[in-house]
Amino acid sequence: MSKLRFNITMTLDAYVAGPSQSVENPLGEGADHLHDWAVKLKTFREMHGDGGGGETGTNDDVLREAVENIGATIMGRNMFGGGPGPWREQPWKGWWGDNPPFHTPVFVLTHYAREPLVMQGGTTFTFVTDGIESALEQAREAAGGKDVALGGGASIAQQYMAEGLIDEMEIHIVPFLLGSGARLFDNLQDSELRLESVRTIGTPSVTHVKYRIAK
Amino acid sequence: MSKLRFNITMTLDAYVAGPSQSVENPLGEGADHLHDWAVKLKTFREMHGDGGGGETGTNDDVLREAVENIGATIMGRNMFGGGPGPWREQPWKGWWGDNPPFHTPVFVLTHYAREPLVMQGGTTFTFVTDGIESALEQAREAAGGKDVALGGGASIAQQYMAEGLIDEMEIHIVPFLLGSGARLFDNLQDSELRLESVRTIGTPSVTHVKYRIAK
Repeated sequence: MSKLRFNITMTLDAYVAGPSQSVENPLGEGADHLHDWAVKLKTFREMHGDGGGGETGTNDDVLREAVENIGATIMGRNMFGGGPGPWREQPWKGWWGDNPPFHTPVFVLTHYAREPLVMQGGTTFTFVTDGIESALEQAREAAGGKDVALGGGASIAQQYMAEGLIDEMEIHIVPFLLGSGARLFDNLQDSELRLESVRTIGTPSVTHVKYRIAK
Repeated sequence: MSKLRFNITMTLDAYVAGPSQSVENPLGEGADHLHDWAVKLKTFREMHGDGGGGETGTNDDVLREAVENIGATIMGRNMFGGGPGPWREQPWKGWWGDNPPFHTPVFVLTHYAREPLVMQGGTTFTFVTDGIESALEQAREAAGGKDVALGGGASIAQQYMAEGLIDEMEIHIVPFLLGSGARLFDNLQDSELRLESVRTIGTPSVTHVKYRIAK
């Protein structure tokens, strides 16, 4: 059965976005450099259609492995963007332009129903209003035997973690501080979540730790 | 010149102690298992005079390296214990009994003056009231060419991090959550602290990441 795999970049003080996220500042204040480790990599540039070039090496290998064998993606409304609440008249189509970097069916968890959106390059957005297990089921079916990627944000990840639905999570820990913002592990005090590390790869600018949820 | 080295165990959600620290519950609520990775190790048992035995292997190697070549230790008042405020009539002598596991001169940062305490096994407690740089200077002198260990807690570590005084810090990241309590990286928003990882060692129960402060 296809695995649900979660990848996210987190600061050493456990934030995945800064405070005051907005359309102008999607990752929040102070988070401009959060994904520096990834944006210059060859695999990142390929996903985003940024032409050739980009760094290769350990970090690129990790990123490439994270995006390989993915048949579908799940994300939360906040990651999809456009602000909370009902969809507006000219509804938001995501941050990524006409050819988003997913190139798979993407299932967006939201309280507000909406017709599916077909984008260029193989990305489709389907809006799921009946919860995380429904989104996972639809994503697995769409993935056609490949794995499902959980994109984020923190709130969606917490829900999947709390239910023990994540098969594999890799946290890319960057060695600086945000101080406030979206904490990856909020709302999990009662979950007794325990993880077990299955692989660790260290580089000067980012530490990649892959975990599974301990039984 | 002797290095100031900082070692601490931190949960994945960036806490080094739970809430409501007290004499009965020195590490705070929910933190009983925080140091599990270390307490069963051969080196830990030796430091604490727990007799022979104890696990060897990767984690033990890391712990042994952390305590090797240490000539003096610095800690904060909260780590030394006994509650805040002026020393009482029968003043607190630390958590560790008559033969504490430091076996070096220990410099305790406090606002309240007190005569030095000589314990068994080579540990002496000297109470420093004139700040972190004074404590560091005295510790370096006492260390006799060996390194100085910074013991904690979070508050003291933040002060040394903010001033860029730590040469090497190794964080032992344990894969569970405390949810609240003492955050290692509090009070550092304005410091623009950036670290660079110099070594990473992964095991299932703990990830050891050694950093230096980036220039």
